[in-house]
Amino acid sequence: MKLAILGAGDVGRSVADLAGEYGHDVVALADSTTAAVDANGIAVRETIDRKVNDDTLGTADPDDIFETEYDVLVEATPTTLGDAQPGFSHAKRTLTDDRHVVLANKGPVAERYEELQGLEAESAGSVRFEATVGGAIPVLSTIEDETPQAVTAIRGVLNGTANFILTRMAAEGLDYEHVLAEAQDLGVAEADPTFDVDGTDAALKFVILANVLADGGFSLSDATVDGIENIPGSALDLAAEDGRTIRLIGEATRDGVRVGPRLVPENSALAVTGTRNIVQIETRHAGSLHSSGRGAGGPETATAVLSDIGRLPPLE
Amino acid sequence: MKLAILGAGDVGRSVADLAGEYGHDVVALADSTTAAVDANGIAVRETIDRKVNDDTLGTADPDDIFETEYDVLVEATPTTLGDAQPGFSHAKRTLTDDRHVVLANKGPVAERYEELQGLEAESAGSVRFEATVGGAIPVLSTIEDETPQAVTAIRGVLNGTANFILTRMAAEGLDYEHVLAEAQDLGVAEADPTFDVDGTDAALKFVILANVLADGGFSLSDATVDGIENIPGSALDLAAEDGRTIRLIGEATRDGVRVGPRLVPENSALAVTGTRNIVQIETRHAGSLHSSGRGAGGPETATAVLSDIGRLPPLE
Repeated sequence: MKLAILGAGDVGRSVADLAGEYGHDVVALADSTTAAVDANGIAVRETIDRKVNDDTLGTADPDDIFETEYDVLVEATPTTLGDAQPGFSHAKRTLTDDRHVVLANKGPVAERYEELQGLEAESAGSVRFEATVGGAIPVLSTIEDETPQAVTAIRGVLNGTANFILTRMAAEGLDYEHVLAEAQDLGVAEADPTFDVDGTDAALKFVILANVLADGGFSLSDATVDGIENIPGSALDLAAEDGRTIRLIGEATRDGVRVGPRLVPENSALAVTGTRNIVQIETRHAGSLHSSGRGAGGPETATAVLSDIGRLPPLE
Repeated sequence: MKLAILGAGDVGRSVADLAGEYGHDVVALADSTTAAVDANGIAVRETIDRKVNDDTLGTADPDDIFETEYDVLVEATPTTLGDAQPGFSHAKRTLTDDRHVVLANKGPVAERYEELQGLEAESAGSVRFEATVGGAIPVLSTIEDETPQAVTAIRGVLNGTANFILTRMAAEGLDYEHVLAEAQDLGVAEADPTFDVDGTDAALKFVILANVLADGGFSLSDATVDGIENIPGSALDLAAEDGRTIRLIGEATRDGVRVGPRLVPENSALAVTGTRNIVQIETRHAGSLHSSGRGAGGPETATAVLSDIGRLPPLE
């Protein structure tokens, strides 16, 4: 398939990098100000190097991307809340043009799910968004294969930064500020880590899951969210005395979304370590399915995008 | 879709039972000697009750199933080795008639994989077999979505009977014979438990996985297999002193298949407990994906069959 990739951060660049291996052509790669466009396929390696070294993808305009002949728009621009712009407009433009959109951007599916579904219903193109939840872990495809009606709840750890911090606090007996600084040095936490540590990032993902289960109806403002910023090291020490630890756990059901720190047994499946993520999918007929893996990263998230592309139906 | 179900054991009956919930009609259900056939859909509840109470599905002949109009044959007859008959013939007949076949029977894909692929290539129908590996756990669909080329190895615990026995031996300090008897009382082990405890059942599953990775080339005779029948209770006690335990672990790569008892850390992901199964899928770009869940059972395996049916392309 011909891919037009919007967003040249870790995810966008990784999708461009791996596309050939999966049998796809990259006809466009754009960031907010520059773009490389070629109907016969861009020179991916060169373009990525140009971005990394010179901070430009090429001389084309990002809007040119929509004038190119492509099958799938990969929307990998930064997640925005509320009106989810410009991501939502990008998806809308693509669906209006009867093309597919594969999202790595959580905004449109967390904040404007029903509108997006409406646009999809009117389009020959489809919307997929595996990459918005759990990085490399096949969460949404599993729910799709089980059928959402057969899934009763999803619980888990979906933010690797917060999980890493809690793992290190427990392992080293260090306090939050200290471990956050360590996480930033390692590149596990961003310079502004707010959305990771206050639970917003995890909540967006569980809101997306609730929307899938309930066929819409939820946005971030519906979630009950608590972060990890106020957990003292002593709380983890006390938990350990009881054979337990603390993890930032989220839960999505048809009735709502909650994210917050929870006590879990140290050897429980939910006590994943480091930056790993885990989901527990509760089903009607098949008990509890657990899936864990790397929840973030360029190549990891790119595999979710490429997996989605592989599941798109042919365009008319 | 219209389902013709061959095999009325736990899996066949569960598929028939759940089909309606997933939007499918059951036009035939057959065992080795009797059948219920109705082009408008059989009375599933009545037919299952008749089987359970009177050991007959109805007055039709099992061969009538192939004269019926159906979209998918669900092959849920007992797994046989070597020539994989009659399961292989059932799949062949269906593909020759340009219909889909969804296997819960491991024989054809473990023992005659390339032949089956050849028949599929000549057919308008497709072959799917999620239910042959790991019960409810989406193993094959995950590999399919990653693409087999991006998967380097699969490791895990794929026999719940053996895992239950080892779990109980370690937990209670009991010996193998004692725990096997307990497992048989609980229905976790069969009257003839050979294939579960000698590693054959697990090996068949890892052979299927190797065939998927390598696009054929393996059968049961290629696997190196050791079972759990000779593990003394003392081995587990010794392991525990070191913070380890023993599990029947299998591994499939493009180079081959090995199944045998292995020492694993007590808190490792591979140390699943009871009858649970786990697979660790090693990928090129996304690290290690772990999936665990119920590896066997009527409804559990039926969800895998129904998940496969949901992923079938439309027939011409």
